[in-house]
Amino acid sequence: MDSRPASSNARGAEYPRIESDLRVTFRIKAPDARKVQLQPGGDDNGLGKGPMEMTRAEDGTWSITTPPAVPGFHYYWFLIDGAVVSDPASETYFGWGRECSALEVPENDVDFYAAKDVPHGDVRIRWYFSQTTQAWRRAYVYTPAEYDRSAAARYPVLYLQHGAGEDERGWIQQGRANFILDNLIAEGKAKPLLIVMEQGYAAAPGVVQAIATQGRGTGQVNLFEQVVVHDLIPMIDATYRTLPDREHRAMAGLSMGGAQTLQITLAHPDNFAWIGSFSAPLRGAQDLKTAYSGAFADPAAFNNRYRLLWLGAGTAEQRLFEAAQILHEALDKAGIRSVFYQSPGTAHEWLTWRRHLHEFVPLLFRSDGDAGKK
Amino acid sequence: MDSRPASSNARGAEYPRIESDLRVTFRIKAPDARKVQLQPGGDDNGLGKGPMEMTRAEDGTWSITTPPAVPGFHYYWFLIDGAVVSDPASETYFGWGRECSALEVPENDVDFYAAKDVPHGDVRIRWYFSQTTQAWRRAYVYTPAEYDRSAAARYPVLYLQHGAGEDERGWIQQGRANFILDNLIAEGKAKPLLIVMEQGYAAAPGVVQAIATQGRGTGQVNLFEQVVVHDLIPMIDATYRTLPDREHRAMAGLSMGGAQTLQITLAHPDNFAWIGSFSAPLRGAQDLKTAYSGAFADPAAFNNRYRLLWLGAGTAEQRLFEAAQILHEALDKAGIRSVFYQSPGTAHEWLTWRRHLHEFVPLLFRSDGDAGKK
Repeated sequence: MDSRPASSNARGAEYPRIESDLRVTFRIKAPDARKVQLQPGGDDNGLGKGPMEMTRAEDGTWSITTPPAVPGFHYYWFLIDGAVVSDPASETYFGWGRECSALEVPENDVDFYAAKDVPHGDVRIRWYFSQTTQAWRRAYVYTPAEYDRSAAARYPVLYLQHGAGEDERGWIQQGRANFILDNLIAEGKAKPLLIVMEQGYAAAPGVVQAIATQGRGTGQVNLFEQVVVHDLIPMIDATYRTLPDREHRAMAGLSMGGAQTLQITLAHPDNFAWIGSFSAPLRGAQDLKTAYSGAFADPAAFNNRYRLLWLGAGTAEQRLFEAAQILHEALDKAGIRSVFYQSPGTAHEWLTWRRHLHEFVPLLFRSDGDAGKK
Repeated sequence: MDSRPASSNARGAEYPRIESDLRVTFRIKAPDARKVQLQPGGDDNGLGKGPMEMTRAEDGTWSITTPPAVPGFHYYWFLIDGAVVSDPASETYFGWGRECSALEVPENDVDFYAAKDVPHGDVRIRWYFSQTTQAWRRAYVYTPAEYDRSAAARYPVLYLQHGAGEDERGWIQQGRANFILDNLIAEGKAKPLLIVMEQGYAAAPGVVQAIATQGRGTGQVNLFEQVVVHDLIPMIDATYRTLPDREHRAMAGLSMGGAQTLQITLAHPDNFAWIGSFSAPLRGAQDLKTAYSGAFADPAAFNNRYRLLWLGAGTAEQRLFEAAQILHEALDKAGIRSVFYQSPGTAHEWLTWRRHLHEFVPLLFRSDGDAGKK
């Protein structure tokens, strides 16, 4: 059968290879190993539940062919005699708290996140010094194609956060956010905007920064909130031609980043008017009187204050999906406007979040008169 | 003794750790492995010649402490029962044809490549479509801090290439070129300029792109030359505010990238006036009548045509050092102006090339009257 190297591979690497029916063959050379296993990361994505035994060939390579994979972006790694290691044949993607292998499984007839023949924005790597943490931090900033051609135009900004164990590179390398925006803007479906992606971790000065790979980390959220409000936003507004007010500032994030988004945007109504929660854990959110320090307690005030509260989840991530659904219904019942988007058939994975971004961004920064256009 | 996690580690990773005397301890968990070894990449950098046996502790971790390392940036990897794998605790750096572990060993009292409290430029990730290869390519582009503040100013451009097995990310991730430029510009030692970094590989349409990890690759140089001249330079000049003529265009590269630089700049005098060769293989260059299709055959014409021919090498990379020295002396004897810089004590490694960039850039794009200022 016809097979091709995955587009997520390192340059020139022949494996993993994907068959036309989406079965995947992994291979690694480990001549003296006794046992080599494949471990897919995260939810079931068709590759199987790991660890799965690989088979040794006479030349010392070990391989396995999986059943057809679910389209999307799947982390994976190998266990070589019990050691957790990335596949040397994969490009690496920071996830699970380390530089992790991953597999891009193509979707038929879907190209909203593909590089196309449209004007392309730049993704800028921006270093800045945080007064909060007393350390250098790195942000990724997407500027739309027209940004460099117009000397004076100013743009709204979306702050966009990754999940636990990932970092500021995730929305570009895993999420292809730049191509999603290039395409939406070229089609006239989204207003040109800047996207700012930061690392959702912050440690007090002198403390070694830890990585949260489960849940919301260890008390870092509050410090990250300070970084966003006191360091990041002022730096972005001073460095780029932004529209520096709440009406032109959105925040969204996936999983841990969604929880951070809700915490930060609801605590800082003067800074943000547009909110996106992608597959976020929503602990305690259902009690609208107390959730998020009472941000939902006065529905009329909330509707007046925020322009968009957008909730998304994949139908295959049951617990988070149900939590978003329950919150959406509770908000609806209380008279608080929100949007609930369901990504068909996808789990707690990047294809869910690519779709979320693709659905969320067209709703941003519209004047009231635009609202009916959706 | 006081020890610290290497700055090249993945966020939050405790190992490798560097002692104050620059001994390094590596550690990895591999509970069921029979043999785990450390393999430093490249020339001797103080870590020892590999593969070196690591020792198993009762908890299934394996570790080794090396003698004091040479300051600089050193690739390394582990062999787990014969499998070549990156250290999961390291950030990865594309080298040796894969995402490779590496170790940053600090230099005392040297900060020309450190992030400092000076204006910082952006490093832009730029995608573009190559007509030559009929494929999307990614370039990294450094724009100086003032670029975004001045709406009309135009800038000269340095095209800067990585070595074999590396890619367009190398000069930023391994080389810290952005910080070197930020600092030089802030000190008034370099003119503000753009740096364009591309992948030094090109395959004909439909051909899977291979990686050259040794020498100059397999016939890719000519196609890469076409990409640079016909695709990359026109795209850069159309996208950014450049000074689009040969007098304001330089090219430099390290190792394979130095060989590519000499080939491309000497074959295209209409495109480049400034040349930097960092630790390049110089096969056949000593015969000045025939080298590079006779580019050196007429010394007066050469001196008239090119503004700078800069050769560098580390004193600890003996073969390449001697080749550069011999070429420099032959050029000198023939009456062709060139500069020869010797990086003290460093081998075929990134500290050599950080120093090269730091020495080379201040000489670029000076008017004749500036020449005496060096």
